[in-house]
Amino acid sequence: MSRISFDNRLMFTYESKSFPGVNKVANLVREDIRKVTGFYADEYTRGCRCKNLIIYGTIGRSDYLRELEGNGLIDLEEVRGKWEVYSFTVLDSPMDGVDHALVIAGSDKRGTIYGLFHLSELLGVSPLVNWNHVIPRKKKNVFLTDASDIVTREPSVRYRGFFINDEWPAFGNWATEHFGGVNAKCYERIFELLLRLKGNYLWPAMWRSNFSMDGPGLESARLADEYGVVMSTSHHEPCMRSGEEYGLLRGENSLYGDAWDFLKNREGITRFWRDGLLRNRSFENVITLGMRGERDSKILGEEATLKDNIDLLRDVLKTQNDLIRETIDEDPDKVPRQMVLFSEVEEFFYGNEETEGLINDEQLKGVTLILSDNNCGYTRTLPTKETRDHPGGYGMYYHMDMHGGPYSFKWIGSTYLPRVWEEMTTAYEFGVRQIWVTNVGDIGTQELGLSFFLDLAYDIDKWGGTDAAVTQRYVNEWAERQFGGMLPLSARNRAKKILWDYTDLLEKRRHEIMNADVYHPLHFGEAQRILEASECILKESMSLKKRIKEPDMSAFISLLYYPACGTANLMKMWILAGRNRLFAFQNRIEANDLAMEVDECVRRDAELIEEYEAVDEGYYKGLGKSEHIGFINWNEEDNRLPIRHLVYGAGSPRMLVSRKDDEHYMTGLEWCDRPQTWRDMLRPDVDSVEFDIISGSDKPFSYRIKTGCSWLEFSRTEGNVAKRERIALRVNKALLDERVTGTFEVEGIGVGTAHITVEAAPDSAPYGVFIESDGYICMEAEHFKKEMAVPGGDFRILSPYGRSGSAIKVFPVTADFYGKKKLPGVEYRFFAESEDEYDITFDLAPTTPVTFKGGQYLGYSINGSKMKIINTVKNPDEQFFFSRQWREEAVNSVKKVTDTVLCLRGENRLIFYGVSPGIVLERILLVRKGIAIPESYLGPGESYIRLEGETFSGNEEEKNEHES
Amino acid sequence: MSRISFDNRLMFTYESKSFPGVNKVANLVREDIRKVTGFYADEYTRGCRCKNLIIYGTIGRSDYLRELEGNGLIDLEEVRGKWEVYSFTVLDSPMDGVDHALVIAGSDKRGTIYGLFHLSELLGVSPLVNWNHVIPRKKKNVFLTDASDIVTREPSVRYRGFFINDEWPAFGNWATEHFGGVNAKCYERIFELLLRLKGNYLWPAMWRSNFSMDGPGLESARLADEYGVVMSTSHHEPCMRSGEEYGLLRGENSLYGDAWDFLKNREGITRFWRDGLLRNRSFENVITLGMRGERDSKILGEEATLKDNIDLLRDVLKTQNDLIRETIDEDPDKVPRQMVLFSEVEEFFYGNEETEGLINDEQLKGVTLILSDNNCGYTRTLPTKETRDHPGGYGMYYHMDMHGGPYSFKWIGSTYLPRVWEEMTTAYEFGVRQIWVTNVGDIGTQELGLSFFLDLAYDIDKWGGTDAAVTQRYVNEWAERQFGGMLPLSARNRAKKILWDYTDLLEKRRHEIMNADVYHPLHFGEAQRILEASECILKESMSLKKRIKEPDMSAFISLLYYPACGTANLMKMWILAGRNRLFAFQNRIEANDLAMEVDECVRRDAELIEEYEAVDEGYYKGLGKSEHIGFINWNEEDNRLPIRHLVYGAGSPRMLVSRKDDEHYMTGLEWCDRPQTWRDMLRPDVDSVEFDIISGSDKPFSYRIKTGCSWLEFSRTEGNVAKRERIALRVNKALLDERVTGTFEVEGIGVGTAHITVEAAPDSAPYGVFIESDGYICMEAEHFKKEMAVPGGDFRILSPYGRSGSAIKVFPVTADFYGKKKLPGVEYRFFAESEDEYDITFDLAPTTPVTFKGGQYLGYSINGSKMKIINTVKNPDEQFFFSRQWREEAVNSVKKVTDTVLCLRGENRLIFYGVSPGIVLERILLVRKGIAIPESYLGPGESYIRLEGETFSGNEEEKNEHES
Repeated sequence: MSRISFDNRLMFTYESKSFPGVNKVANLVREDIRKVTGFYADEYTRGCRCKNLIIYGTIGRSDYLRELEGNGLIDLEEVRGKWEVYSFTVLDSPMDGVDHALVIAGSDKRGTIYGLFHLSELLGVSPLVNWNHVIPRKKKNVFLTDASDIVTREPSVRYRGFFINDEWPAFGNWATEHFGGVNAKCYERIFELLLRLKGNYLWPAMWRSNFSMDGPGLESARLADEYGVVMSTSHHEPCMRSGEEYGLLRGENSLYGDAWDFLKNREGITRFWRDGLLRNRSFENVITLGMRGERDSKILGEEATLKDNIDLLRDVLKTQNDLIRETIDEDPDKVPRQMVLFSEVEEFFYGNEETEGLINDEQLKGVTLILSDNNCGYTRTLPTKETRDHPGGYGMYYHMDMHGGPYSFKWIGSTYLPRVWEEMTTAYEFGVRQIWVTNVGDIGTQELGLSFFLDLAYDIDKWGGTDAAVTQRYVNEWAERQFGGMLPLSARNRAKKILWDYTDLLEKRRHEIMNADVYHPLHFGEAQRILEASECILKESMSLKKRIKEPDMSAFISLLYYPACGTANLMKMWILAGRNRLFAFQNRIEANDLAMEVDECVRRDAELIEEYEAVDEGYYKGLGKSEHIGFINWNEEDNRLPIRHLVYGAGSPRMLVSRKDDEHYMTGLEWCDRPQTWRDMLRPDVDSVEFDIISGSDKPFSYRIKTGCSWLEFSRTEGNVAKRERIALRVNKALLDERVTGTFEVEGIGVGTAHITVEAAPDSAPYGVFIESDGYICMEAEHFKKEMAVPGGDFRILSPYGRSGSAIKVFPVTADFYGKKKLPGVEYRFFAESEDEYDITFDLAPTTPVTFKGGQYLGYSINGSKMKIINTVKNPDEQFFFSRQWREEAVNSVKKVTDTVLCLRGENRLIFYGVSPGIVLERILLVRKGIAIPESYLGPGESYIRLEGETFSGNEEEKNEHES
Repeated sequence: MSRISFDNRLMFTYESKSFPGVNKVANLVREDIRKVTGFYADEYTRGCRCKNLIIYGTIGRSDYLRELEGNGLIDLEEVRGKWEVYSFTVLDSPMDGVDHALVIAGSDKRGTIYGLFHLSELLGVSPLVNWNHVIPRKKKNVFLTDASDIVTREPSVRYRGFFINDEWPAFGNWATEHFGGVNAKCYERIFELLLRLKGNYLWPAMWRSNFSMDGPGLESARLADEYGVVMSTSHHEPCMRSGEEYGLLRGENSLYGDAWDFLKNREGITRFWRDGLLRNRSFENVITLGMRGERDSKILGEEATLKDNIDLLRDVLKTQNDLIRETIDEDPDKVPRQMVLFSEVEEFFYGNEETEGLINDEQLKGVTLILSDNNCGYTRTLPTKETRDHPGGYGMYYHMDMHGGPYSFKWIGSTYLPRVWEEMTTAYEFGVRQIWVTNVGDIGTQELGLSFFLDLAYDIDKWGGTDAAVTQRYVNEWAERQFGGMLPLSARNRAKKILWDYTDLLEKRRHEIMNADVYHPLHFGEAQRILEASECILKESMSLKKRIKEPDMSAFISLLYYPACGTANLMKMWILAGRNRLFAFQNRIEANDLAMEVDECVRRDAELIEEYEAVDEGYYKGLGKSEHIGFINWNEEDNRLPIRHLVYGAGSPRMLVSRKDDEHYMTGLEWCDRPQTWRDMLRPDVDSVEFDIISGSDKPFSYRIKTGCSWLEFSRTEGNVAKRERIALRVNKALLDERVTGTFEVEGIGVGTAHITVEAAPDSAPYGVFIESDGYICMEAEHFKKEMAVPGGDFRILSPYGRSGSAIKVFPVTADFYGKKKLPGVEYRFFAESEDEYDITFDLAPTTPVTFKGGQYLGYSINGSKMKIINTVKNPDEQFFFSRQWREEAVNSVKKVTDTVLCLRGENRLIFYGVSPGIVLERILLVRKGIAIPESYLGPGESYIRLEGETFSGNEEEKNEHES
């Protein structure tokens, strides 16, 4: 077994004919090795004595590789001519005087670079080593053997990268603080980050920056090329000129004229584009084609017809292709080009029935068509079977940061990996394989999502597939890479949970659009669950932080503590604000305590940002600056921090009695007691509820609970209430033979007496069906009773996934059963209390149709009835991306499709069919007509279902263990 | 000219045969005289020498009177045999050794007492001298001449009194504190108060008191009779037994049985009543007949039919009349009896089409039928022409305090005199002349309203009539009586204004039902007007208080300072709370200052009560105790003090630009500037508006105002905003030749720029018509163009009156033009901007129909169209008193009747006709279809009307000077 040791006798080859960028990266890797082993590798001089040697090079630019291959010591056949491939070979005695060697051979510049960084990773160096100052674990006796030999495959996606966008105030301030601007010094850090994450493609910052002018000059572009970073520009910046450039260069006496108008200033604009192509043609680029109005506007005015627009665009494309022929290559198909079908451009691409779109235009033939997500992480139109083999291939522009509609999210990275996994894997299956680019805003705090996005693009076989649990594995491995050096395993496991939990909160609702109205403060305990999750994140993060040594603080805070605590504290703040408001309206004296707690959260928010920006000698300074609280417009304009509500207690002692999950309360007073009936204990799985005895005054009172029912038990039956006392009521079901009704009283002594009726029943649920209670049945999609696969498709469970933690989806993801006779289905069984109409709601992931025309269908049937097909698109004639439905679903992270069904008294069978691609079912809710269930964001908890062999336990925790 | 001096030689006669109560009152008057003159009159012994002698007595019980009449010195013919009449005669040398005398001769016990107290009043002693410790002005050389000779007429109403009710916690605590209970000692004070106010009739407290048991024993009843106070009981306490008595006396072994049930316990109940009659028969009473369930409930259960109830009641009445025959007088018509048609009893009285009511039952023949108001000061059913001569006559039970629906008002007396004047004068005209009794709750702070009520009942000719201004004269005289001794005239005039202004606030909205939602914080400036009125009351009251000497403080605080400041401070608190909430939602940083101001008001509320209860060595202790803030039920249960809203400013400077009267604001930001257009200056009478530049952050900013319009002028065009800056915009109309549109910008420097469009027009209004602006025309009812009287009725203006200060009403008040051909009318003219449909709203006083059947009609016609008759009762089949309409109108102090009319472009003529009695029109609002005018409680200000000969002045103050 060959073997190389990373000791103080390690050397690196150096060849001047190698790509300069490769040599630069080799030096970065030497530094990485020093961090791990403590030894900085010397440079090897041919012929000298060397114990352990790292030989690296690119085929065709390395004498070492040529010689080793010539000697038969390495085999480069599987590497040669490939795209970004490298091999790793550990050899003994590769050359005279050299005992051991590792040969890193790249098919091309980036192949070699990825190979070099692969070495760092093998040694435990995080790709974020220099970006987040993740300090690797120091190791002794480090070695590699030929067990590490590998020949990589070409990456799954050809161009993989990100877009620095919406970069003020955060990234812009950060760059200015550290580099004096968004210049080449700054970009060098970003190129390294991109390459270490196995990306190769970049859209540079362009809000106030000109990549090819600010390096200074062309320096950033030159450096990108040196590093092998393929530069491109965003969707509306054609011919390698950034969006702001024209504004700087236009003028009355300018060569480029003074109008961003291809009709009126054809000559000037053409010259502008030509000069851009000439300027950047020596570098590796993907050139954007097309044209848009300035600042995200349409190219023509509102009065122009679709045909006007398409004709103009066709003219523009021809002009641009001609310029490419003229300046770069007579065959433009040899020049990587792209056109981005973002927002309104989509319409010009597809055209309509009267007007042919650009879809089959010969100008676009070899051009990569970049599709977009819905601005919030759900892909829009995907290639159809017919268009899938478009010669230029497809790309995807995907938002992990948004400054625009339906809402902006810019503060802390809010990417939930299962969402990216599900959507991008699907896109890949639909043929989107040429370019993947993600908008990561300021980059800072986006590292987890960005890493996954690029890793998925690099190796879809490893991180894609049909099992969503891979995302959890990814988080675990990622956490190991970042925190392996600073925390023991048990603590790292807690860190993994924190990462998962905070992104899970954001899957339900992102920071900027969180507010006091989102979660109902009491109903179904949803706010309490969010609060508890948030508090757990805060507590755990602070606990971990105490174990972090100062040098590791930079990585810990930037990658975990700040994004997790920032998120959790914000969620907590809004939950408390919502509770404060409700409690104030109810005159609960505890509302004032909540106001103080809200205030504490507001201060904590500022402190967390300060902490992030101060750590590591201010290395992240600027990156925490984005507005992020209480957006009411799509952007931060007119945003609102929480309002604190202060109450005065009543003039005399006042009692409120309320279930902990109900906003209605009893007063116990003569004229407005508002007695309640509680029916929870009719549920087979419920034998207790909790309720609160609350003070509506700052004058405390005593209480007494009285009942004549022997089967009612209370955790306390007397005491004092200053603010609030929580009481558990338990029904001893062992004492019940039949359904019973009982009452109890809560007497606030000298205040009033509240009257509660309790209905309860012994446990007598049938097996294997969901049981209605309080007028509704709620079923998690994953808990179907049986599955009906058909040739060409079957449902699989996605878990973890979505707002409620799981979902189902048909695989293969491209399968379309619309109009087919045999459809895959899953069957649910539930028990209804009466023959009646029920409103049925399917909670679906807020995906958008994969087709430009608005059709995305689901099907269902009940009790053997004919299958009913519903278009989940409410207004199919409207472009989905601009619809109200798009906005609402994106904001709430859910698509709700409702209908009315007739249920039988007793057992019912509901079959849900897969019809269109893109349908992801999360849960099903049936509500009996006339019943108004308490309002909430996430909906009620799942209904009870007794599984075969189960006996009554009363333990709600077991509900997640259904077989399905 | 005869003359008597009140010097140190003044004496009073004393006759043992006189009524003991009369002698007691004479001693009170001697004490009054001492307070004025400093001399306590000696007792005169027949034959001795006397310079100045007061001779008083009751015809038939005075030797002096007999002798003087016999000597022809006085003439008692006009007094003798009358009801409560007295004469005043100043004589020289009436008897040997006596130089001068005043002879007070009463027709009966109370006649003499009223005569004695009349002397006190002539000397400047307030009837409240001992109740509120109103110290009379000390005088020198006091004398009376025969110019004061008088023979009074019988009072307008036979029985005049009040009801001490809802007396816990306030009155009850006060009585316990000072007298150890609601006993004879306590009642002696109340009898004196009643008699000095010229009342004669009382319903005693009965929440936890038994008038005829707690004296101790019968002492209170005996004392009442001694003083000539006619005792009665409230509506549901028959046969002189108070409501609680049965509860004390019932039991298994009780003679009275153990059920308040005339069917099941006829014998026990009958005995209970008989014993009550026997116990109290020796005193002067008005005996309540009828029966009700316990605690305001129906006599029979919900399942009983109307006939069941009526039959039972008929049986009860017969039993009670028989008991009266048996115990008091064989002819019950000689025994004053009453039945109170309160709430649900009304239905039994009138019956329905199938079932005859008690209305003509012979058991009720000589019984006074006491009608009721709507619980809030508006009379309900009044006698019809047919029933008006019912032998027993009619009474009125009128609420100045309410504990019940639609809402309770118990704290500070909230009676607005024009309301009492209008309603009780009307009741009198309808024949309600036998009994007037008003519920005054705790008495304390009700003194003004109570005085007026009893004075009106005593002399309807003096205080009734058709001119509402008499109420203002009453307030002035009343203030002179109370404050004449403590303040100079200019200060007394300010006190009169305070009294008027605070009751005017309460006419719009009473204390308990005031809240942050009543007045819109900005629209039409209504909240600002209430706030300014409140602050003026507070400032003026505090300023006056500084001039009050300690001994006068008791009267000053109890009669003016506390009720006025308590009211004003409460109104201010809610206005600020509403503003705080709106401003908090708008993120104005000044919201936090408002929260502190609200807090200050809450503290002030407690301080004012403390001050009231502490003054005069705690004489009012207990009387300030009623809950009075934020009722959300009819009573105080679950009431709410204001919520204070605290905001955080935005993270960076933020500008809001808002008209001072609009809740909508501009931000000046790129995506949500929300530019506005202001059209006020199209109004001929408006050439300026004010707007605010507001900070939404604690970070101040500078602003600049820019315009290209020479005709736009600003009070400032630059400055800094820390919280809010108010700017006046003026249009220089002299520069305008035609309608113009201009724009200006408010630039928050570095923040944003708000854009405002202004439309303006030169003054070109036609004469004599109201002008539409912003889509509406609003006309005060009093500003009609011409009047059309008919035989039998004409409209008169009521001023002051109602929510907007004036109204119109047909006189005589009993006139009913329903179905008549010729109706009285008034014509309004207005100028509409377009031929269009307009929603017309008549704002009427919230009167209730004078008939039991729900019909109360108004009529109108527009531009010569046929008169349209509208029933103001929305659901005539429902008993009005229990209707939703009753509740809403009573709460909001307004009845709104709406319809849709077609208007012409240009001048329109609207005629409003008087149809039913009880219609009081306050204002008319027309709103063009499709226009949504800003929401408000009081509605917009009056539209502009140019009067003949008027030129444009731009002075809104002149609008009240219309001729009409």
